[in-house]
Amino acid sequence: MLNIQEYISNNKDRFLSELIELLKIPSISADSAFSQDVIDTAQAVKVALQEAGCDSVEICETDGYPIIYGEKIIDPTLPTILVYGHYDVQPPDPIELWHSPPFEPVIKATPLHPEGAIFARGSCDDKGQMYMHVKALELMVNTNRLPCNVKFMIEGEEEVGSNNLAIFVAENREKLANDIILISDTSMIANDVPSITTGLRGLSYVEVQVTGPNRDLHSGLYGGAVANPINILTKMIASLHDENNHITIPEFYDKVEELSTEERAEMAKAPFSLDKYKKALDIEAVYGEKNYSTNERNAVRPTLDVNGIWGGYTGEGAKTVIASKAYAKISMRLVPHQDWREITELFKTHFERIAPKCIKVKVTPYHGGQGYVTPIDTVAYQAAAKAYETTFGKTPIPQRTGGSIPIVSLFEKELGSKTILMGFGLDSDAIHSPNEHFGVWNYLKGIETIPYFYEYFTEMNT
Amino acid sequence: MLNIQEYISNNKDRFLSELIELLKIPSISADSAFSQDVIDTAQAVKVALQEAGCDSVEICETDGYPIIYGEKIIDPTLPTILVYGHYDVQPPDPIELWHSPPFEPVIKATPLHPEGAIFARGSCDDKGQMYMHVKALELMVNTNRLPCNVKFMIEGEEEVGSNNLAIFVAENREKLANDIILISDTSMIANDVPSITTGLRGLSYVEVQVTGPNRDLHSGLYGGAVANPINILTKMIASLHDENNHITIPEFYDKVEELSTEERAEMAKAPFSLDKYKKALDIEAVYGEKNYSTNERNAVRPTLDVNGIWGGYTGEGAKTVIASKAYAKISMRLVPHQDWREITELFKTHFERIAPKCIKVKVTPYHGGQGYVTPIDTVAYQAAAKAYETTFGKTPIPQRTGGSIPIVSLFEKELGSKTILMGFGLDSDAIHSPNEHFGVWNYLKGIETIPYFYEYFTEMNT
Repeated sequence: MLNIQEYISNNKDRFLSELIELLKIPSISADSAFSQDVIDTAQAVKVALQEAGCDSVEICETDGYPIIYGEKIIDPTLPTILVYGHYDVQPPDPIELWHSPPFEPVIKATPLHPEGAIFARGSCDDKGQMYMHVKALELMVNTNRLPCNVKFMIEGEEEVGSNNLAIFVAENREKLANDIILISDTSMIANDVPSITTGLRGLSYVEVQVTGPNRDLHSGLYGGAVANPINILTKMIASLHDENNHITIPEFYDKVEELSTEERAEMAKAPFSLDKYKKALDIEAVYGEKNYSTNERNAVRPTLDVNGIWGGYTGEGAKTVIASKAYAKISMRLVPHQDWREITELFKTHFERIAPKCIKVKVTPYHGGQGYVTPIDTVAYQAAAKAYETTFGKTPIPQRTGGSIPIVSLFEKELGSKTILMGFGLDSDAIHSPNEHFGVWNYLKGIETIPYFYEYFTEMNT
Repeated sequence: MLNIQEYISNNKDRFLSELIELLKIPSISADSAFSQDVIDTAQAVKVALQEAGCDSVEICETDGYPIIYGEKIIDPTLPTILVYGHYDVQPPDPIELWHSPPFEPVIKATPLHPEGAIFARGSCDDKGQMYMHVKALELMVNTNRLPCNVKFMIEGEEEVGSNNLAIFVAENREKLANDIILISDTSMIANDVPSITTGLRGLSYVEVQVTGPNRDLHSGLYGGAVANPINILTKMIASLHDENNHITIPEFYDKVEELSTEERAEMAKAPFSLDKYKKALDIEAVYGEKNYSTNERNAVRPTLDVNGIWGGYTGEGAKTVIASKAYAKISMRLVPHQDWREITELFKTHFERIAPKCIKVKVTPYHGGQGYVTPIDTVAYQAAAKAYETTFGKTPIPQRTGGSIPIVSLFEKELGSKTILMGFGLDSDAIHSPNEHFGVWNYLKGIETIPYFYEYFTEMNT
């Protein structure tokens, strides 16, 4: 029987070329122009799971994009791991900033990935990290070391709020029954500083529309006398933060968990260089809520960010117009105990209340999800830590991250299962940005580490 | 010899169909994709002037789009009228709000234009109003009533700042020598309330760019810790007005001419219904500088309007991104004595100064122009007033408008000539907006009134 490293070494070119094929399909769930591509990707994932050794794989239709469910049950008395991932990707905009086309993967070395990284939308988030699990299953099956049962649930709507997955999970509790949920859709601190994500932020995402006059107006004939919806929108958005960068929505902070001095001291120990951080982003200064550090601001504090804004003339040259409408997409990252539906409602009420009489405002909630904190004294965490120790030679650091996987708290509620977040990408991999990439070393390291988690988790549970 | 009304009656169908052909060419000067169309329009204007009876017509090349110069000199001892107009048009965006394609003219009746209006980009601003002068010349030539010399200067860059016209005028003072400049690029109060424009606002137009991180970032991983350029831009723009809607740029108001109580009382006499104004725009309240009326706000007070804003994800659905850059196009309407170059510099200095250290800001001036006030005790004003009395049966009201024709103050400086602004469109004709239109009645009334101006102006000057 080949050992894990030998199997990876013998098959790594194929592991890469298979992932590259998957990355070529532009499965952008947010844009209906790509719906056939999303469906084609679902089909490709189904085939991949079958070929990796699942006993059965189904394409489960939903009101949106299908969920791929696969399983290999070797012995019902053994533990069951449920792997979750997603095959949809973020839109590639702004496309002109990509150095190579987002759906034509290329491998190039970078300072942090001297052995090469795959550049493509979805390479890290989450096709690449999801496919590590497919290949880890293949490895365990072909080397006869699958120690427990495994179920896969791979969805196509993570980037648009997972609404149909929530329904699917609620309706399929028995089918999805498991002892632990395993997800690779987060990051680790550095290739030589492995970490396990123990906290995620929640999310509330809304679109706002401000309407002034019933048509675009000539800014000379009407300027100064009629409310300009763009100027009003900037005033309304600006007022959502005070001079200390606190969010001004009433009751917004009421349920925010304040960390103890000890917890903050513990967090401050994580390796972090503010200089390197600023240099990597080419900024002269960081910016955020007063009295909190950068790592606190982006992990344990809630935020309010404009993700997009538009209105009026945005083409070449000048147009002297007062737009009839102005728009913004706004999202709030939430921390544990903040309920996303409640926060969305607080935002809506507040935004409507601060609207001056001269305009009309409309707030459209898009989607949201709860934050999550996972304990580190569980068997799953211990098994994961031991797996990293085996393959990285280092104990991983528990880390709370600012990102959101809203479905995690739903899994706990519906399935009664905890989740373990084993991310192998880096924060600098530019997920959701132009030139997203995923280290080849990281991809293979993930495939290597996952089987050890299966092994230790099964051992500790039996 | 046919009289004026007979000639118009016999030729009105052709007058309309010729204008419609001209409106079909999308001469959008702001967008280089349409450069050939702009050049084709210049050619069409040249031919129209030749056919109308000019002795000579030249296409004068510039560094941008050409200027069409034509003349008919009947006797050098007689007065000379210089007609100015422009053949370029505003971009049609947002195109989806047009009820018929912007470059496929259709004639439809409206409440204010029961005899029909031509719907097309440029129908009023300024192809339609410019073409009235071409057809008025044809009428005077063919009915043997041209009483003086006439020169035409029709440019193709009015909507982008007339930079090359300024050079052309400075270099051709002798060729352009005249006794009065006649322009139809403004509006009148209503079809039964003729008015002559006696004041124009100046303009300063800039684009601003705010740059935060060197790439788009995931709003979960970085949100709260890094300045979001869109949030910062909204804060910066919002701060440009105080709670009384005064502009906060230091020294901005230093040279603004304050109207006397008498002048304000005089202005307040112009027919105006706030209720109708609000109803026409479908707004619940007007909005503007404290302590000024709507008509003062849009004519004699300076403004600062965002004409366009963009940044981040603006497509369908949601994208949790912190954009690297955010942009806005901002224009300021200025009143007489405010120098546009000085105001542009004040804006730039102020905007750069209020930028927080966490972002970089770039201010790009586009173009500008001075405001203008024309006296009403001149021969030209009296001749124009008499022409309106002849064809409308009413004395026109002198009116200051909020729009800008930056070139007017340049004409005065370079050529030493006053300008008379005989506009025949209505403010509600939606220039610069979707569904721009120009009343058929107004078009023909312009062709009818212009020859009387020539006649009275010549009489009064000889």
